[in-house]
Amino acid sequence: MRFRLETRYADYDTKGHVNNAVYLTYFEIARAEAWLGAVGGSPDAPFIIAEATVRFVRPAMIGVPLDIEVATTEVRPKAWVWHYRVVDARDDTLVAEGQTVQVMYDYTAGRSVEIPADVRAGLSNV
Amino acid sequence: MRFRLETRYADYDTKGHVNNAVYLTYFEIARAEAWLGAVGGSPDAPFIIAEATVRFVRPAMIGVPLDIEVATTEVRPKAWVWHYRVVDARDDTLVAEGQTVQVMYDYTAGRSVEIPADVRAGLSNV
Amino acid sequence: MRFRLETRYADYDTKGHVNNAVYLTYFEIARAEAWLGAVGGSPDAPFIIAEATVRFVRPAMIGVPLDIEVATTEVRPKAWVWHYRVVDARDDTLVAEGQTVQVMYDYTAGRSVEIPADVRAGLSNV
Amino acid sequence: MRFRLETRYADYDTKGHVNNAVYLTYFEIARAEAWLGAVGGSPDAPFIIAEATVRFVRPAMIGVPLDIEVATTEVRPKAWVWHYRVVDARDDTLVAEGQTVQVMYDYTAGRSVEIPADVRAGLSNV
Repeated sequence: MRFRLETRYADYDTKGHVNNAVYLTYFEIARAEAWLGAVGGSPDAPFIIAEATVRFVRPAMIGVPLDIEVATTEVRPKAWVWHYRVVDARDDTLVAEGQTVQVMYDYTAGRSVEIPADVRAGLSNV
Repeated sequence: MRFRLETRYADYDTKGHVNNAVYLTYFEIARAEAWLGAVGGSPDAPFIIAEATVRFVRPAMIGVPLDIEVATTEVRPKAWVWHYRVVDARDDTLVAEGQTVQVMYDYTAGRSVEIPADVRAGLSNV
Repeated sequence: MRFRLETRYADYDTKGHVNNAVYLTYFEIARAEAWLGAVGGSPDAPFIIAEATVRFVRPAMIGVPLDIEVATTEVRPKAWVWHYRVVDARDDTLVAEGQTVQVMYDYTAGRSVEIPADVRAGLSNV
Repeated sequence: MRFRLETRYADYDTKGHVNNAVYLTYFEIARAEAWLGAVGGSPDAPFIIAEATVRFVRPAMIGVPLDIEVATTEVRPKAWVWHYRVVDARDDTLVAEGQTVQVMYDYTAGRSVEIPADVRAGLSNV
Protein backbone atom coordinates (compact mmCIF):
# COMPACT_ATOMS: atom_id res chain seq x y z
CA MET A 1 0.00 0.00 0.00
CA ARG A 2 1.26 3.46 -0.81
CA PHE A 3 -0.24 6.87 -0.14
CA ARG A 4 0.59 10.53 0.26
CA LEU A 5 1.54 11.82 3.73
CA GLU A 6 -0.12 15.05 4.82
CA THR A 7 2.90 16.64 6.44
CA ARG A 8 2.36 19.41 8.98
CA TYR A 9 4.43 22.51 9.54
CA ALA A 10 4.96 21.40 13.15
CA ASP A 11 6.64 18.21 11.86
CA TYR A 12 9.68 20.24 10.81
CA ASP A 13 12.35 21.30 13.25
CA THR A 14 14.96 24.05 13.42
CA LYS A 15 17.01 22.34 10.72
CA GLY A 16 14.10 22.79 8.29
CA HIS A 17 13.52 19.05 7.96
CA VAL A 18 11.11 16.53 9.43
CA ASN A 19 12.02 15.82 13.05
CA ASN A 20 13.30 12.28 13.61
CA ALA A 21 10.55 11.32 16.08
CA VAL A 22 7.87 12.25 13.55
CA TYR A 23 8.78 9.26 11.38
CA LEU A 24 7.29 6.97 14.00
CA THR A 25 4.12 9.05 13.69
CA TYR A 26 4.28 8.64 9.90
CA PHE A 27 4.60 4.89 10.43
CA GLU A 28 1.58 5.10 12.74
CA ILE A 29 -0.43 6.89 10.06
CA ALA A 30 0.50 4.12 7.63
CA ARG A 31 -0.51 1.49 10.19
CA ALA A 32 -3.91 3.12 10.58
CA GLU A 33 -4.39 3.18 6.81
CA ALA A 34 -3.23 -0.41 6.47
CA TRP A 35 -5.40 -1.56 9.37
CA LEU A 36 -8.56 0.21 8.20
CA GLY A 37 -7.96 -0.41 4.51
CA ALA A 38 -6.85 -4.02 4.49
CA VAL A 39 -8.04 -5.47 7.79
CA GLY A 40 -10.99 -3.32 8.82
CA GLY A 41 -12.48 -2.67 12.25
CA SER A 42 -12.03 -0.03 14.94
CA PRO A 43 -9.49 2.78 14.43
CA ASP A 44 -8.53 2.14 18.07
CA ALA A 45 -6.80 -1.02 16.94
CA PRO A 46 -6.32 -4.13 19.15
CA PHE A 47 -2.56 -4.49 18.89
CA ILE A 48 0.50 -3.13 20.63
CA ILE A 49 3.85 -2.13 19.21
CA ALA A 50 6.72 -4.23 20.52
CA GLU A 51 9.59 -2.81 18.51
CA ALA A 52 10.27 0.01 16.08
CA THR A 53 13.31 0.85 14.01
CA VAL A 54 13.99 3.76 11.69
CA ARG A 55 16.89 4.33 9.34
CA PHE A 56 17.17 7.97 8.28
CA VAL A 57 18.58 8.14 4.76
CA ARG A 58 18.26 11.78 3.78
CA PRO A 59 16.50 14.79 5.34
CA ALA A 60 12.97 15.64 4.18
CA MET A 61 13.01 19.39 3.72
CA ILE A 62 9.88 21.49 4.04
CA GLY A 63 7.92 21.65 0.79
CA VAL A 64 8.94 18.18 -0.41
CA PRO A 65 5.89 15.93 -0.98
CA LEU A 66 6.25 12.59 0.81
CA ASP A 67 4.70 9.23 0.09
CA ILE A 68 4.77 6.29 2.46
CA GLU A 69 4.67 2.61 1.56
CA VAL A 70 3.77 -0.11 4.03
CA ALA A 71 4.05 -3.85 3.49
CA THR A 72 3.60 -6.94 5.64
CA THR A 73 6.94 -8.76 5.67
CA GLU A 74 6.36 -11.43 8.31
CA VAL A 75 3.40 -12.99 10.14
CA ARG A 76 3.92 -15.03 13.31
CA PRO A 77 1.24 -16.69 15.50
CA LYS A 78 0.71 -13.61 17.70
CA ALA A 79 2.69 -10.89 15.91
CA TRP A 80 3.52 -9.48 12.53
CA VAL A 81 6.07 -7.14 10.97
CA TRP A 82 5.27 -4.10 8.88
CA HIS A 83 8.01 -2.48 6.82
CA TYR A 84 7.79 1.18 5.79
CA ARG A 85 9.47 3.32 3.17
CA VAL A 86 9.09 7.12 3.16
CA VAL A 87 10.01 8.52 -0.25
CA ASP A 88 10.14 11.84 -2.06
CA ALA A 89 6.90 11.58 -4.06
CA ARG A 90 8.42 13.35 -7.05
CA ASP A 91 11.18 10.83 -7.84
CA ASP A 92 10.84 7.99 -5.32
CA THR A 93 14.14 8.88 -3.63
CA LEU A 94 14.29 7.07 -0.30
CA VAL A 95 14.05 9.41 2.70
CA ALA A 96 13.68 6.91 5.54
CA GLU A 97 12.69 3.33 6.09
CA GLY A 98 12.00 1.11 9.04
CA GLN A 99 9.77 -1.48 10.56
CA THR A 100 7.53 -2.14 13.51
CA VAL A 101 6.52 -5.37 15.19
CA GLN A 102 2.85 -5.53 16.17
CA VAL A 103 1.52 -7.95 18.79
CA MET A 104 -2.17 -8.86 18.73
CA TYR A 105 -3.53 -7.82 22.08
CA ASP A 106 -6.69 -8.29 24.10
CA TYR A 107 -6.99 -5.04 26.07
CA THR A 108 -9.77 -6.47 28.25
CA ALA A 109 -7.79 -9.53 29.28
CA GLY A 110 -4.52 -7.60 29.29
CA ARG A 111 -2.53 -10.16 27.32
CA SER A 112 -1.32 -11.02 23.83
CA VAL A 113 -3.51 -13.35 21.77
CA GLU A 114 -3.29 -15.33 18.53
CA ILE A 115 -3.94 -13.38 15.35
CA PRO A 116 -7.54 -14.16 14.25
CA ALA A 117 -8.02 -15.68 10.77
CA ASP A 118 -9.70 -12.58 9.31
CA VAL A 119 -6.88 -10.33 10.49
CA ARG A 120 -4.36 -12.81 9.07
CA ALA A 121 -6.15 -12.70 5.73
CA GLY A 122 -6.23 -8.91 5.81
CA LEU A 123 -2.52 -8.67 6.58
CA SER A 124 -1.71 -10.48 3.34
CA ASN A 125 -3.31 -7.57 1.47
CA VAL A 126 -1.01 -4.93 2.96
CA MET B 1 2.41 29.38 40.77
CA ARG B 2 5.51 29.58 38.67
CA PHE B 3 7.88 26.92 37.41
CA ARG B 4 10.44 26.12 34.74
CA LEU B 5 9.23 24.62 31.46
CA GLU B 6 11.20 21.65 30.17
CA THR B 7 11.24 22.63 26.51
CA ARG B 8 11.86 19.95 23.91
CA TYR B 9 13.78 20.23 20.68
CA ALA B 10 10.64 19.14 18.81
CA ASP B 11 8.83 22.23 20.20
CA TYR B 12 10.84 24.46 17.88
CA ASP B 13 9.96 24.90 14.24
CA THR B 14 11.81 25.93 11.09
CA LYS B 15 11.99 29.53 12.30
CA GLY B 16 14.07 28.37 15.29
CA HIS B 17 11.38 29.35 17.80
CA VAL B 18 8.68 27.56 19.74
CA ASN B 19 5.83 26.62 17.41
CA ASN B 20 2.61 28.51 18.15
CA ALA B 21 0.54 25.40 18.90
CA VAL B 22 3.02 24.31 21.55
CA TYR B 23 1.97 27.16 23.84
CA LEU B 24 -1.34 25.40 24.42
CA THR B 25 0.72 22.39 25.46
CA TYR B 26 2.72 24.62 27.81
CA PHE B 27 -0.56 25.86 29.26
CA GLU B 28 -1.61 22.24 29.65
CA ILE B 29 1.60 21.45 31.53
CA ALA B 30 0.87 24.39 33.84
CA ARG B 31 -2.69 23.14 34.34
CA ALA B 32 -1.42 19.71 35.33
CA GLU B 33 1.00 21.30 37.81
CA ALA B 34 -1.69 23.59 39.19
CA TRP B 35 -4.21 20.78 39.43
CA LEU B 36 -1.87 18.31 41.14
CA GLY B 37 -0.11 20.90 43.25
CA ALA B 38 -3.01 23.01 44.48
CA VAL B 39 -6.09 20.86 44.04
CA GLY B 40 -4.83 17.28 44.11
CA GLY B 41 -6.33 14.11 42.68
CA SER B 42 -5.99 12.17 39.44
CA PRO B 43 -3.65 13.47 36.70
CA ASP B 44 -6.46 12.53 34.31
CA ALA B 45 -8.37 15.56 35.55
CA PRO B 46 -12.20 15.83 35.59
CA PHE B 47 -12.60 19.03 33.62
CA ILE B 48 -12.84 20.04 29.99
CA ILE B 49 -11.43 23.08 28.23
CA ALA B 50 -14.10 25.35 26.77
CA GLU B 51 -11.95 28.17 25.45
CA ALA B 52 -8.29 29.01 24.98
CA THR B 53 -6.57 32.19 23.88
CA VAL B 54 -2.91 32.95 23.30
CA ARG B 55 -1.23 36.25 22.59
CA PHE B 56 2.26 35.79 21.14
CA VAL B 57 4.45 38.67 22.26
CA ARG B 58 7.94 37.70 21.12
CA PRO B 59 9.45 34.49 19.72
CA ALA B 60 11.10 32.05 22.14
CA MET B 61 14.31 31.04 20.40
CA ILE B 62 15.99 27.72 21.09
CA GLY B 63 18.26 27.82 24.12
CA VAL B 64 16.21 30.43 26.00
CA PRO B 65 15.04 29.09 29.39
CA LEU B 66 11.29 29.59 29.86
CA ASP B 67 9.21 29.89 32.99
CA ILE B 68 5.45 29.69 33.10
CA GLU B 69 3.13 31.33 35.60
CA VAL B 70 -0.45 30.26 36.13
CA ALA B 71 -3.07 32.03 38.24
CA THR B 72 -6.77 31.60 38.88
CA THR B 73 -8.47 34.80 37.75
CA GLU B 74 -12.16 33.89 37.95
CA VAL B 75 -14.27 31.14 39.52
CA ARG B 76 -17.88 30.58 38.40
CA PRO B 77 -20.32 27.90 39.64
CA LYS B 78 -19.24 25.29 37.07
CA ALA B 79 -16.17 26.86 35.46
CA TRP B 80 -13.03 28.80 36.20
CA VAL B 81 -10.42 30.82 34.32
CA TRP B 82 -6.68 30.25 34.46
CA HIS B 83 -4.34 32.90 33.13
CA TYR B 84 -0.83 32.04 31.95
CA ARG B 85 2.34 33.98 31.33
CA VAL B 86 5.35 32.42 29.59
CA VAL B 87 8.48 34.44 30.29
CA ASP B 88 12.18 34.38 29.54
CA ALA B 89 13.45 32.97 32.84
CA ARG B 90 16.59 35.12 32.74
CA ASP B 91 14.90 38.53 32.81
CA ASP B 92 11.14 37.93 33.02
CA THR B 93 10.54 39.32 29.52
CA LEU B 94 7.06 38.32 28.43
CA VAL B 95 7.06 35.77 25.59
CA ALA B 96 3.37 34.85 25.46
CA GLU B 97 0.30 35.01 27.62
CA GLY B 98 -3.20 33.68 27.47
CA GLN B 99 -6.01 32.01 29.31
CA THR B 100 -8.18 28.94 29.31
CA VAL B 101 -11.68 28.36 30.63
CA GLN B 102 -12.13 25.03 32.40
CA VAL B 103 -15.54 23.44 32.97
CA MET B 104 -15.96 20.90 35.76
CA TYR B 105 -17.11 17.72 34.08
CA ASP B 106 -18.50 14.34 35.10
CA TYR B 107 -17.14 12.00 32.42
CA THR B 108 -19.40 9.16 33.61
CA ALA B 109 -22.58 11.20 33.39
CA GLY B 110 -21.32 13.10 30.36
CA ARG B 111 -22.25 16.55 31.61
CA SER B 112 -20.87 19.62 33.37
CA VAL B 113 -21.23 19.79 37.15
CA GLU B 114 -20.80 22.31 39.96
CA ILE B 115 -17.26 22.81 41.20
CA PRO B 116 -16.91 20.83 44.48
CA ALA B 117 -15.94 22.77 47.61
CA ASP B 118 -12.49 21.16 47.88
CA VAL B 119 -11.66 22.00 44.28
CA ARG B 120 -12.89 25.56 44.85
CA ALA B 121 -10.62 25.86 47.84
CA GLY B 122 -7.70 24.47 45.87
CA LEU B 123 -8.25 26.90 43.00
CA SER B 124 -7.72 29.83 45.34
CA ASN B 125 -4.18 28.56 45.92
CA VAL B 126 -3.21 28.70 42.26
CA MET C 1 -11.91 27.12 1.64
CA ARG C 2 -12.82 23.78 3.11
CA PHE C 3 -10.96 20.49 3.18
CA ARG C 4 -10.61 17.20 5.00
CA LEU C 5 -8.20 17.00 7.95
CA GLU C 6 -5.92 13.98 8.03
CA THR C 7 -6.15 13.30 11.73
CA ARG C 8 -3.41 11.25 13.37
CA TYR C 9 -3.72 8.71 16.15
CA ALA C 10 -1.29 10.79 18.21
CA ASP C 11 -3.74 13.72 18.06
CA TYR C 12 -6.07 11.93 20.47
CA ASP C 13 -5.50 11.91 24.19
CA THR C 14 -6.50 9.69 27.09
CA LYS C 15 -10.09 10.90 26.87
CA GLY C 16 -10.29 9.45 23.35
CA HIS C 17 -10.75 12.85 21.71
CA VAL C 18 -8.52 15.31 19.91
CA ASN C 19 -6.23 17.05 22.41
CA ASN C 20 -6.98 20.76 22.81
CA ALA C 21 -3.54 21.95 21.66
CA VAL C 22 -3.90 20.04 18.39
CA TYR C 23 -6.58 22.45 17.18
CA LEU C 24 -3.92 25.12 16.79
CA THR C 25 -2.05 22.61 14.62
CA TYR C 26 -5.24 22.04 12.61
CA PHE C 27 -5.51 25.81 12.18
CA GLU C 28 -1.89 25.81 11.03
CA ILE C 29 -2.64 23.11 8.46
CA ALA C 30 -5.51 25.26 7.19
CA ARG C 31 -3.21 28.30 7.07
CA ALA C 32 -0.71 26.37 4.95
CA GLU C 33 -3.48 25.27 2.57
CA ALA C 34 -4.89 28.78 2.39
CA TRP C 35 -1.48 30.33 1.91
CA LEU C 36 -0.35 27.89 -0.80
CA GLY C 37 -3.75 27.60 -2.47
CA ALA C 38 -4.87 31.22 -2.54
CA VAL C 39 -1.74 33.29 -2.09
CA GLY C 40 1.10 31.10 -3.35
CA GLY C 41 4.77 31.17 -2.51
CA SER C 42 7.05 29.41 -0.04
CA PRO C 43 5.54 26.93 2.45
CA ASP C 44 7.83 28.61 5.00
CA ALA C 45 5.49 31.58 4.96
CA PRO C 46 6.56 35.18 5.73
CA PHE C 47 4.13 36.00 8.52
CA ILE C 48 3.96 35.56 12.26
CA ILE C 49 1.00 34.70 14.46
CA ALA C 50 0.12 37.44 16.93
CA GLU C 51 -2.96 35.95 18.53
CA ALA C 52 -4.94 32.72 18.51
CA THR C 53 -8.24 31.79 20.06
CA VAL C 54 -10.09 28.49 20.13
CA ARG C 55 -13.60 27.73 21.35
CA PHE C 56 -14.09 24.02 21.96
CA VAL C 57 -17.72 23.13 21.25
CA ARG C 58 -17.82 19.34 21.40
CA PRO C 59 -15.16 16.64 21.60
CA ALA C 60 -13.93 15.05 18.36
CA MET C 61 -13.80 11.35 19.15
CA ILE C 62 -11.45 8.99 17.33
CA GLY C 63 -12.90 7.73 14.06
CA VAL C 64 -14.94 10.88 13.34
CA PRO C 65 -13.94 12.46 10.00
CA LEU C 66 -13.17 16.16 10.38
CA ASP C 67 -13.32 18.98 7.89
CA ILE C 68 -11.84 22.42 8.44
CA GLU C 69 -13.01 25.69 6.94
CA VAL C 70 -10.87 28.80 6.81
CA ALA C 71 -11.97 32.27 5.76
CA THR C 72 -10.40 35.72 5.75
CA THR C 73 -12.57 37.93 7.96
CA GLU C 74 -10.47 41.08 8.22
CA VAL C 75 -7.51 42.65 6.40
CA ARG C 76 -5.53 45.49 8.00
CA PRO C 77 -2.44 47.28 6.58
CA LYS C 78 0.04 44.84 8.13
CA ALA C 79 -2.16 42.06 9.47
CA TRP C 80 -5.20 39.93 8.70
CA VAL C 81 -7.58 37.65 10.52
CA TRP C 82 -8.40 34.09 9.55
CA HIS C 83 -11.40 32.37 11.07
CA TYR C 84 -11.60 28.57 11.32
CA ARG C 85 -14.38 26.07 11.82
CA VAL C 86 -13.66 22.39 12.49
CA VAL C 87 -16.75 20.29 11.78
CA ASP C 88 -17.84 16.67 11.78
CA ALA C 89 -17.60 15.97 8.05
CA ARG C 90 -20.63 13.68 8.13
CA ASP C 91 -23.20 16.24 9.27
CA ASP C 92 -21.39 19.59 9.61
CA THR C 93 -21.80 19.62 13.40
CA LEU C 94 -19.44 22.24 14.82
CA VAL C 95 -16.58 20.74 16.83
CA ALA C 96 -14.43 23.83 17.41
CA GLU C 97 -13.92 27.27 15.98
CA GLY C 98 -11.45 30.06 16.43
CA GLN C 99 -9.30 32.63 14.78
CA THR C 100 -5.72 33.73 14.37
CA VAL C 101 -4.20 37.12 13.62
CA GLN C 102 -1.31 37.02 11.14
CA VAL C 103 1.23 39.83 10.84
CA MET C 104 3.19 40.19 7.60
CA TYR C 105 6.81 39.86 8.57
CA ASP C 106 10.20 40.41 7.00
CA TYR C 107 12.40 37.77 8.65
CA THR C 108 15.57 39.31 7.22
CA ALA C 109 14.84 42.78 8.56
CA GLY C 110 13.22 41.40 11.71
CA ARG C 111 10.12 43.60 11.59
CA SER C 112 6.51 43.70 10.45
CA VAL C 113 5.78 45.08 6.99
CA GLU C 114 2.79 46.16 4.91
CA ILE C 115 0.88 43.38 3.19
CA PRO C 116 1.98 43.35 -0.49
CA ALA C 117 -0.73 43.84 -3.15
CA ASP C 118 -0.50 40.27 -4.46
CA VAL C 119 -0.90 38.81 -0.98
CA ARG C 120 -3.84 41.14 -0.34
CA ALA C 121 -5.47 39.93 -3.55
CA GLY C 122 -4.84 36.31 -2.59
CA LEU C 123 -6.34 36.78 0.87
CA SER C 124 -9.65 37.78 -0.66
CA ASN C 125 -9.84 34.30 -2.21
CA VAL C 126 -9.63 32.47 1.10
CA MET D 1 23.46 10.00 33.01
CA ARG D 2 20.00 9.65 34.46
CA PHE D 3 17.27 12.20 34.99
CA ARG D 4 13.53 12.62 35.40
CA LEU D 5 11.38 13.05 32.30
CA GLU D 6 8.81 15.81 32.43
CA THR D 7 6.00 13.93 30.74
CA ARG D 8 3.17 15.91 29.16
CA TYR D 9 -0.50 15.07 29.05
CA ALA D 10 -0.33 15.21 25.25
CA ASP D 11 2.25 12.37 25.32
CA TYR D 12 -0.47 9.90 26.28
CA ASP D 13 -2.84 8.41 23.74
CA THR D 14 -6.28 6.85 23.81
CA LYS D 15 -4.93 3.76 25.53
CA GLY D 16 -3.90 5.93 28.49
CA HIS D 17 -0.20 5.28 27.96
CA VAL D 18 2.69 7.13 26.35
CA ASN D 19 2.35 7.03 22.55
CA ASN D 20 5.05 4.97 20.86
CA ALA D 21 6.44 7.86 18.78
CA VAL D 22 6.98 9.93 21.93
CA TYR D 23 9.82 7.64 23.04
CA LEU D 24 11.96 9.03 20.23
CA THR D 25 11.20 12.46 21.65
CA TYR D 26 12.22 11.22 25.10
CA PHE D 27 15.46 9.95 23.56
CA GLU D 28 15.88 13.39 22.00
CA ILE D 29 15.43 15.06 25.38
CA ALA D 30 18.11 12.76 26.78
CA ARG D 31 20.40 13.59 23.85
CA ALA D 32 20.01 17.29 24.54
CA GLU D 33 20.82 16.75 28.23
CA ALA D 34 23.79 14.54 27.38
CA TRP D 35 25.05 16.96 24.76
CA LEU D 36 24.73 20.06 26.91
CA GLY D 37 25.77 18.37 30.13
CA ALA D 38 28.74 16.30 29.00
CA VAL D 39 29.86 17.85 25.72
CA GLY D 40 28.70 21.45 25.84
CA GLY D 41 27.97 23.86 23.03
CA SER D 42 24.91 24.96 21.11
CA PRO D 43 21.54 23.33 21.86
CA ASP D 44 21.11 23.21 18.06
CA ALA D 45 23.63 20.39 17.96
CA PRO D 46 25.91 19.60 14.99
CA PHE D 47 24.99 15.96 14.44
CA ILE D 48 22.36 14.02 12.57
CA ILE D 49 20.54 10.85 13.55
CA ALA D 50 21.22 7.94 11.21
CA GLU D 51 19.28 5.20 12.98
CA ALA D 52 16.91 4.76 15.88
CA THR D 53 15.47 1.68 17.49
CA VAL D 54 12.99 1.31 20.32
CA ARG D 55 11.90 -1.81 22.17
CA PHE D 56 8.65 -1.26 24.06
CA VAL D 57 8.67 -3.42 27.18
CA ARG D 58 5.61 -2.31 29.13
CA PRO D 59 3.17 0.61 28.76
CA ALA D 60 3.84 3.79 30.74
CA MET D 61 0.45 4.73 32.14
CA ILE D 62 -0.43 8.32 32.97
CA GLY D 63 0.70 9.32 36.45
CA VAL D 64 3.75 7.03 36.50
CA PRO D 65 6.99 9.02 37.01
CA LEU D 66 9.58 8.17 34.39
CA ASP D 67 13.35 8.40 34.47
CA ILE D 68 15.58 8.11 31.46
CA GLU D 69 19.15 6.88 31.36
CA VAL D 70 21.52 7.55 28.48
CA ALA D 71 24.96 6.06 27.95
CA THR D 72 27.56 6.13 25.20
CA THR D 73 28.07 2.54 24.07
CA GLU D 74 30.23 2.97 20.99
CA VAL D 75 32.37 5.71 19.40
CA ARG D 76 33.45 5.45 15.75
CA PRO D 77 35.50 8.01 13.74
CA LYS D 78 32.44 9.98 12.58
CA ALA D 79 29.60 8.49 14.60
CA TRP D 80 28.64 7.25 18.02
CA VAL D 81 25.89 5.20 19.64
CA TRP D 82 23.78 6.26 22.57
CA HIS D 83 21.71 3.71 24.42
CA TYR D 84 18.61 4.71 26.39
CA ARG D 85 16.53 3.12 29.13
CA VAL D 86 13.20 4.57 30.20
CA VAL D 87 12.23 3.25 33.62
CA ASP D 88 9.46 3.63 36.18
CA ALA D 89 11.20 6.00 38.59
CA ARG D 90 9.58 4.33 41.61
CA ASP D 91 11.07 0.86 41.21
CA ASP D 92 13.35 0.99 38.13
CA THR D 93 11.07 -1.33 36.14
CA LEU D 94 12.06 -1.13 32.48
CA VAL D 95 9.44 0.58 30.31
CA ALA D 96 11.34 0.93 27.04
CA GLU D 97 14.87 0.90 25.76
CA GLY D 98 16.60 1.65 22.52
CA GLN D 99 19.47 3.33 20.82
CA THR D 100 20.32 5.97 18.26
CA VAL D 101 23.33 6.40 16.01
CA GLN D 102 24.58 9.99 15.73
CA VAL D 103 26.76 11.19 12.88
CA MET D 104 28.90 14.29 13.37
CA TYR D 105 27.78 16.72 10.72
CA ASP D 106 28.94 20.02 9.26
CA TYR D 107 25.71 21.77 8.32
CA THR D 108 27.57 24.46 6.40
CA ALA D 109 29.51 22.01 4.25
CA GLY D 110 26.61 19.59 4.13
CA ARG D 111 28.62 16.48 4.96
CA SER D 112 29.66 14.21 7.80
CA VAL D 113 32.92 14.98 9.57
CA GLU D 114 35.28 13.36 12.09
CA ILE D 115 34.30 13.69 15.72
CA PRO D 116 36.48 16.48 17.23
CA ALA D 117 38.67 15.56 20.20
CA ASP D 118 36.69 17.67 22.70
CA VAL D 119 33.42 16.04 21.66
CA ARG D 120 35.07 12.61 21.89
CA ALA D 121 36.21 13.42 25.41
CA GLY D 122 32.75 14.63 26.33
CA LEU D 123 31.10 11.49 25.00
CA SER D 124 33.08 9.37 27.42
CA ASN D 125 31.32 11.21 30.26
CA VAL D 126 27.81 10.27 29.14
